[in-house]
Amino acid sequence: MAPESSANTPSTTENRGNIAAASGRRASITVELAERSYPIEIGTGITGELADVLRQEVGDLSHALVIADESIQTHWADPIIECLSSIDNVRVNNTNVPSGETTKSVEHLSRLWDWLLSSGADRRSVLFAIGGGVVGDLAGFAAASFTRGIRFVQIPTTLLAMVDSSVGGKTGINLSGGKNMVGAFWQPELVWIDTACLQTMGERDYLSGLAEVVKYGVIEDAEFFDWLCKNAASLLARDHAALQHAVTRSCQSKARVVRDDERETSGRRAILNYGHTFAHAIEATAGYGAILHGEAVSIGMQMAASLAIDMGLCDESLLTRQTELLTACGLPVQFADADADKMLPVMMRDKKVAHGKLRFILPTDIGNVQLVGDVDPAQVRSAIQAHR
Amino acid sequence: MAPESSANTPSTTENRGNIAAASGRRASITVELAERSYPIEIGTGITGELADVLRQEVGDLSHALVIADESIQTHWADPIIECLSSIDNVRVNNTNVPSGETTKSVEHLSRLWDWLLSSGADRRSVLFAIGGGVVGDLAGFAAASFTRGIRFVQIPTTLLAMVDSSVGGKTGINLSGGKNMVGAFWQPELVWIDTACLQTMGERDYLSGLAEVVKYGVIEDAEFFDWLCKNAASLLARDHAALQHAVTRSCQSKARVVRDDERETSGRRAILNYGHTFAHAIEATAGYGAILHGEAVSIGMQMAASLAIDMGLCDESLLTRQTELLTACGLPVQFADADADKMLPVMMRDKKVAHGKLRFILPTDIGNVQLVGDVDPAQVRSAIQAHR
Ligand SMILES: NC(=O)c1ccc[n+]([C@@H]2O[C@H](COP(=O)([O-])OP(=O)(O)OC[C@H]3O[C@@H](n4cnc5c(N)ncnc54)[C@H](O)[C@@H]3O)[C@@H](O)[C@H]2O)c1
Ligand SMILES: NC(=O)c1ccc[n+]([C@@H]2O[C@H](COP(=O)([O-])OP(=O)(O)OC[C@H]3O[C@@H](n4cnc5c(N)ncnc54)[C@H](O)[C@@H]3O)[C@@H](O)[C@H]2O)c1
Ligand SMILES: [Zn+2]
Ligand SMILES: [Zn+2]
Repeated sequence: MAPESSANTPSTTENRGNIAAASGRRASITVELAERSYPIEIGTGITGELADVLRQEVGDLSHALVIADESIQTHWADPIIECLSSIDNVRVNNTNVPSGETTKSVEHLSRLWDWLLSSGADRRSVLFAIGGGVVGDLAGFAAASFTRGIRFVQIPTTLLAMVDSSVGGKTGINLSGGKNMVGAFWQPELVWIDTACLQTMGERDYLSGLAEVVKYGVIEDAEFFDWLCKNAASLLARDHAALQHAVTRSCQSKARVVRDDERETSGRRAILNYGHTFAHAIEATAGYGAILHGEAVSIGMQMAASLAIDMGLCDESLLTRQTELLTACGLPVQFADADADKMLPVMMRDKKVAHGKLRFILPTDIGNVQLVGDVDPAQVRSAIQAHR
Repeated sequence: MAPESSANTPSTTENRGNIAAASGRRASITVELAERSYPIEIGTGITGELADVLRQEVGDLSHALVIADESIQTHWADPIIECLSSIDNVRVNNTNVPSGETTKSVEHLSRLWDWLLSSGADRRSVLFAIGGGVVGDLAGFAAASFTRGIRFVQIPTTLLAMVDSSVGGKTGINLSGGKNMVGAFWQPELVWIDTACLQTMGERDYLSGLAEVVKYGVIEDAEFFDWLCKNAASLLARDHAALQHAVTRSCQSKARVVRDDERETSGRRAILNYGHTFAHAIEATAGYGAILHGEAVSIGMQMAASLAIDMGLCDESLLTRQTELLTACGLPVQFADADADKMLPVMMRDKKVAHGKLRFILPTDIGNVQLVGDVDPAQVRSAIQAHR
């Protein structure tokens, strides 16, 4: 459902199945999921175009419920609210949630449910989630469950949320005993990405998001990997054109994977976990907060590459090239505190462990990965030790 | 997905598209929802047959999580647990929730989520909800949301749950500000109905469930309405054969409606609300607990019939026949405390009110209803006053 005016004008450099240039500057990607299909619109400084796109993509809009991360309310939510309020006959309600992972809790979910009810939300209302992955996941699940599901729009403001969490319909919260244990698959009506938001991000959070961008190159887009190698400096400088390309290409990757395996049933979606089994073990053993998710993913991809080489799945050059790119992106490629004795037990409890057997997404060459089951723990141990 | 051995042996009296006799005594109905289709198995004293049916219908079962209403644990949950525990390689966990509507809360949902996590539930686990609509709705939503959805089995133990809440996939909880405001459409793998459970029900709760049974006759099964008129006394006596027929026929009605409108998008599912706009207003104005849901539905159907007559949609005989049947079922057909001045404002706030216009499901003759929009409040007032 790309805007009609542009569906037939694919941009020359970025056309790979599901992408078209939506306007002079805006790119439009469709997440193809039959009656649940939706567009991802990507541009810089595009708030002025939102009202038109909402009319085309969301249709009936009389009540907008805006949930924003409190730290970006003034900078990035207020202009959106102003735009929504300027649309004829649209009633707008707004609330905030605190920044940080602890906001993805039952308590904040419950508070949002009550707020939706007291705001007079019903099945025709549309929820807008503005912020990083925390707000998208929490508000997305509130949308999935309020009156058994209302429509919602993702407006991601962090790099990780733009290239990963806002696309694909995974929503949810944490329980005190485990991350992302509760939630729903609930697709948005629209993902609205204004890369201008990235200019206010802290450096470490920003770089952390780049790890997921690099991931797409390794798992399924070799051409993009090459582009990243040439343009890492522009990305570090947060150059608008570079960001537009990198976010677009990443969303395109994610959209393809999600299209092929919306609910994680065929196994295809698992390729997005490249580096993540190691990363989760690093995050868990480093103590929460000591290392950012993207940093752990960067190191985890290095460990996965080493494991793949050790198992004869790919050659050394893959690790060399990945190391160069991650380093050029300002990401860590080793972790002095990595402790195999602590990480292995965590990995054995991971959701991706079937019947006690370690499974990994491992690269065969740049742009290709495969799921490898029953991996020898001794080899996993060596892979960890290769990057400390 | 009816058991293979029986799919081709429809019983002679009960075959109407989606029903077949599953065994000598057990009836089997399929809720036809493409890849989400599931059977409803109905019989008396059939716990001994559950293990076989689970093997056929649920397949991979290694971890069963049983959530039961505490008041029926000993009588009706323990035998099920014993059966589950006797299946090879099945691990069983069990917890209780208190009886009563207040259990459908965020607090109990949160407790169940934590319990699922601490019990080691994962995507391959299967949840069993044993009890009335309260347990089915609450545990069903826990199943819908835990790790974004695990399989579950409905084992309803009240008449209302057997003929209504356990079939159709509506799950959810109440917020302090409103009933059923949060939830999911999440279909079970199997609905297992042992009508023997009805023998321990309190008289008032049991009769209340009969109102929904009568409802199916009026909204879409005239033949069943006639059968009910002839067999009301047997139902009052809780005769096994009569119950088997009445529950089967009701589930068949519900299954047809749900098949045609799984997520309440086409409008067809709204016919299940016959009598309910009045009923909700009666329940709200009578003060919670003063009147049972089914009692209010009985009176609400009477008001709806009067409204239909007043609007020239059906003739007087419909009301006469409905009154006779409801009375024969021991249900109230009028409500001295009905107060139109209080009920009308509640009805205007009902979810079924579109743009401030009163809409009702009204009968045209026994077995047929239609959605009527923009009803004159003065006529609604007369309909209320006709039954006080
Ligand atoms: N749903 C999915 O598919 C999926 C995928 C990956 C990750 N996630 C989830 O995403 C979450 C992480 O997302 P995140 O990294 O965006 O975290 P986040 O939402 O906590 O944002 C990180 C920080 O950036 C701040 N921030 C947001 N936008 C900003 C901006 N434009 N300028 C300055 N600061 C800004 C936030 O206040 C926060 O402090 C995790 O909870 C993770 O589980 C979900
Ligand atoms: N999901 C749906 O489609 C749907 C449809 C209709 C109603 N509902 C919901 O169902 C709920 C009402 O269901 P209900 O009437 O079953 O209420 P309930 O679950 O509260 O059960 C009524 C009473 O009967 C007791 N009980 C249960 N089984 C018994 C047995 N075999 N013997 C003796 N006592 C027994 C319970 O402890 C309770 O006290 C409401 O919350 C309503 O919102 C849901
Ligand atoms: Zn990640
Ligand atoms: Zn009802």
